[in-house]
Amino acid sequence: MSFDPATLVYDANGLIPCIAQEEATGEVLMMAWMNAEAVARTLETGRVTYWSRSRQSFWVKGESSGHLQALVELRVDCDRDCLLALVRQTGPACHTNRRSCFYTALRDGDEVEILQPMAG
Amino acid sequence: MSFDPATLVYDANGLIPCIAQEEATGEVLMMAWMNAEAVARTLETGRVTYWSRSRQSFWVKGESSGHLQALVELRVDCDRDCLLALVRQTGPACHTNRRSCFYTALRDGDEVEILQPMAG
Repeated sequence: MSFDPATLVYDANGLIPCIAQEEATGEVLMMAWMNAEAVARTLETGRVTYWSRSRQSFWVKGESSGHLQALVELRVDCDRDCLLALVRQTGPACHTNRRSCFYTALRDGDEVEILQPMAG
Repeated sequence: MSFDPATLVYDANGLIPCIAQEEATGEVLMMAWMNAEAVARTLETGRVTYWSRSRQSFWVKGESSGHLQALVELRVDCDRDCLLALVRQTGPACHTNRRSCFYTALRDGDEVEILQPMAG
């Protein structure tokens, strides 16, 4: 059936979470938010485009940093209230210059840093 | 440093999203929500425990269905407002009996079902 972003389930702010996963390795890179227009732009342009809650504006991932996310495939979950974007990530996904935002593991009650920033 | 669930960043409803990923394969299984107590219970018991927004109660994944999620490792993202749970999933993660909730792909403008329900 033909896809319409309006058929997704958005929260009270009109947003839906989107998980970005590196297609080649399966690594979960980050989670950010989209509104219906960001979903449409992501599909149209092939560049993953979020809605920045802090800046209240569209956020083409990597537009300023060069660390683009090229969309390979967008998937919808059973409740239609969460998205999974399979991507090809250029450089680090995280603003801390790490490959993934999930670089802190909880081990034996402690926080352990498991990823180092990538070389410049 | 020692981990305290109160140091995570929760939304206005006191919830934080948690992505469940199969440790062995990297498959993203689902996304659901936790409150601070669910985070603590997950770490204490090793069984991934969410907060059900619809039922307004703790939800030990698989407690009624048997489709448990055994916690391998819990990770925190850079903003401390999203969790990634590496798990060993027994059976399907999705209530539709599919391995993952993300069984609908958007391809060429259409919705395509890419996973079938698992055999009973």
